[in-house]
Amino acid sequence: MSSSAETIAKNARLGGNVLKTITNEKRSSLLYKIHDGLKANAHSIQEANKEDLRNAKEGQLADSLYKRLDLFKGDKFETMLAGIIDVAELEDPVGKVKLARELDEGLNLYQVTAPVGVLLVIFESRPEVIANITSLAIKSGNAAILKGGKESVNTFREVSRIINSVITENQSTSGIPSGVIQLIETRQDVSDLLQQDLYIDLVVPRGSNSLVRQIKSSTKIPVLGHADGICSIYLDKEADVDIAKRITIDAKTSYPAGCNAMETLLVNPEMPQWWDVLENLSRAGNVCLHVTGDVKEAYLSKLRESNKLDDQIQSFVVDAVNSSDFDKEFLSLDCAVRFVASTEEAVTHINLHSSKHTDAIITKDKSNAEYFMKAVDSSGVYWNASTRFADGFRYGFGTEVGISTSKIHARGPVGLDGLVSYQYQLRGNGQVASDYVGSGGKRAFLHKNLDISQAPF
Amino acid sequence: MSSSAETIAKNARLGGNVLKTITNEKRSSLLYKIHDGLKANAHSIQEANKEDLRNAKEGQLADSLYKRLDLFKGDKFETMLAGIIDVAELEDPVGKVKLARELDEGLNLYQVTAPVGVLLVIFESRPEVIANITSLAIKSGNAAILKGGKESVNTFREVSRIINSVITENQSTSGIPSGVIQLIETRQDVSDLLQQDLYIDLVVPRGSNSLVRQIKSSTKIPVLGHADGICSIYLDKEADVDIAKRITIDAKTSYPAGCNAMETLLVNPEMPQWWDVLENLSRAGNVCLHVTGDVKEAYLSKLRESNKLDDQIQSFVVDAVNSSDFDKEFLSLDCAVRFVASTEEAVTHINLHSSKHTDAIITKDKSNAEYFMKAVDSSGVYWNASTRFADGFRYGFGTEVGISTSKIHARGPVGLDGLVSYQYQLRGNGQVASDYVGSGGKRAFLHKNLDISQAPF
Repeated sequence: MSSSAETIAKNARLGGNVLKTITNEKRSSLLYKIHDGLKANAHSIQEANKEDLRNAKEGQLADSLYKRLDLFKGDKFETMLAGIIDVAELEDPVGKVKLARELDEGLNLYQVTAPVGVLLVIFESRPEVIANITSLAIKSGNAAILKGGKESVNTFREVSRIINSVITENQSTSGIPSGVIQLIETRQDVSDLLQQDLYIDLVVPRGSNSLVRQIKSSTKIPVLGHADGICSIYLDKEADVDIAKRITIDAKTSYPAGCNAMETLLVNPEMPQWWDVLENLSRAGNVCLHVTGDVKEAYLSKLRESNKLDDQIQSFVVDAVNSSDFDKEFLSLDCAVRFVASTEEAVTHINLHSSKHTDAIITKDKSNAEYFMKAVDSSGVYWNASTRFADGFRYGFGTEVGISTSKIHARGPVGLDGLVSYQYQLRGNGQVASDYVGSGGKRAFLHKNLDISQAPF
Repeated sequence: MSSSAETIAKNARLGGNVLKTITNEKRSSLLYKIHDGLKANAHSIQEANKEDLRNAKEGQLADSLYKRLDLFKGDKFETMLAGIIDVAELEDPVGKVKLARELDEGLNLYQVTAPVGVLLVIFESRPEVIANITSLAIKSGNAAILKGGKESVNTFREVSRIINSVITENQSTSGIPSGVIQLIETRQDVSDLLQQDLYIDLVVPRGSNSLVRQIKSSTKIPVLGHADGICSIYLDKEADVDIAKRITIDAKTSYPAGCNAMETLLVNPEMPQWWDVLENLSRAGNVCLHVTGDVKEAYLSKLRESNKLDDQIQSFVVDAVNSSDFDKEFLSLDCAVRFVASTEEAVTHINLHSSKHTDAIITKDKSNAEYFMKAVDSSGVYWNASTRFADGFRYGFGTEVGISTSKIHARGPVGLDGLVSYQYQLRGNGQVASDYVGSGGKRAFLHKNLDISQAPF
């Protein structure tokens, strides 16, 4: 363990301990100043970004990744700046009273939201993410240690330098110390910091499934992980065929690399015209269908009957590899397809194969939909809507730290709410437990819930 | 990895997936039947318990542990039975709408509480705990795999046998399958189950700090841990001396082995008569004070001035081992004592040394108290109340699964609320993401919060 990792973590902890006590006004005001600082230094950020782009070109980075690196393409830089203001203007997530209870006369218990403390966030190479995460961290009163993808290292360094100089310049008025936002650069740093469970409270890895699993195996710190996004759509026997066509095209083809894209289509063979949905995916969406034997036979014969079976359709049908295609995040214009005989069977398939991200049912039958939403064990359970809605912006959270497939603390798109936890405040005037029944005393607890809007602080 | 661990975990998962869909009425009704079954079989449980007591006697178990094993001492068995009914009658923790938002006309998002899924709970030898945890698990819709301390193995086996026969007998009417409550007996089972992160969602260890740390190091499953309870009380310069005396005696002496007992006393030397608090702890409470050099000098000289310095006082003062006494859970009539010059210094000490369990300030000064409660990073932050109130029963949660010193998901005493998480339900009528701005479309999101009490389910 390097002493530098301990120093970084300890400084974050000390910074976070102070940030926790700073008012929302001062936290938000610092975000405006960070916005202004980044705007005023657009030129130096662009120079750094150009260097990353030059290195990427030399390193022969894939075209799609190269495009993501360019912070000054279109209005990306302005959108990044606007995002900081959006977060600054959100409601304060800290200090909200969630429960108020009179334990006894003059002895009141309050559950109050509080920052988690110190975050270690590991993210990809999109250069704007550093600004998003900095805003969310400061707004929610958390210190953050950030590690971005190495392709954007020059941009990250320059953005981080500016953010930290703004924090330092404003320290005397804001009270927010340096150390609250720190950038680290190497994998060794990450690996050393994962040992600092005394100082770091939560690790948020945004990346591949293997990265998340490897991090979970090598730390005692809780991990808010986003593993694969294996999202399924179930076409119930009461599915509307037009809705089914529209939603499956959107869910599969509008952004196949997205974690909220459909990877599996479950079809109830009693649904009228179900084969239209498959045909539409291939013809309108260029989607290659990985189908089981029974689906293949039924699908091709239905199209043959209506004289629609042609080379195009044939070329978009392949045999599903049963042992793996239903556990795969294709991230491409591919989709695994199988029959299920009922909503129950669809639920069983999903609870076994999905990554607990987002799964949808298409149906006009309310009771099937209600059962599906109650029984599926995923962070998002949708009825007649595309899985692509699983996103912090679309949910109205402003921006997001990531999409969690963890089962506890925060699920689905994680905005400010996922970066706070709570504390119990107990306010008394000298009460001791041994005066109460159950502990040798005579007094009974009142346990009377109070109006949370009337909390005296 | 033994295949038996995988079978146990998989059965729990399958059971939990069904339990998740069962109504509160049926879950609660099963608890009544479990209550009746245990009551009707009191005799066979008592026989099993006697065997544990005989083995304990032969094994020369410490007297205090021996007493904890006896399930039929006083009204312990009746209290255990009553606890099951208490939990059955609590409000349903599942299916509560926490957020309702209109994303667009006909497209509504709901955040709804849902069971965590499958729990692995490792607890000590108190035989009644198996009934508490079974009730909490079933009520909250979670499957649970239970491992109790080996000293109570016969009692646990018999109680578990009865619980499972009640579940099986009622399966056709309740719909709740066997597998939802399973007892395991060996450490090897625990260690194998910690590898089943595909099926198990949360590990709740109740035990020593070293057990909790060891579990965290050996699993990818999230751990809701309760490590040490190193609780501090800070006597501010505006502390009332009578309140300080009363609270410190209660917090240190009413149950020194409790995790919510005071282990550290921080004294502002500007507090009038602070030495009375120390004297009272030793004389009335037989507390051995582990004091720093400056505290020792000031304390003994104050008592000498008032002619109160005698052998008794001297024998209750020892030199604090600075490097460790302030990081120690004594669990005995010992307390570390040091001076701090201000509320800020008290907070800094606590944030560095406490185990983030429960810490208190004694003061008449509201602003010092508010600062303390905002700045201290512990699950419980108390003002003029004993740390001993940190307890699920005292908070009005019914019973508790444990007291969490984790920073995320659930903090402090964990009742039913800590065993649920949430899911996002999205209810639409065919909406697709690509119709909306930000994804290539023209429609804007409404993001209008709705009245959660008006949710249509």
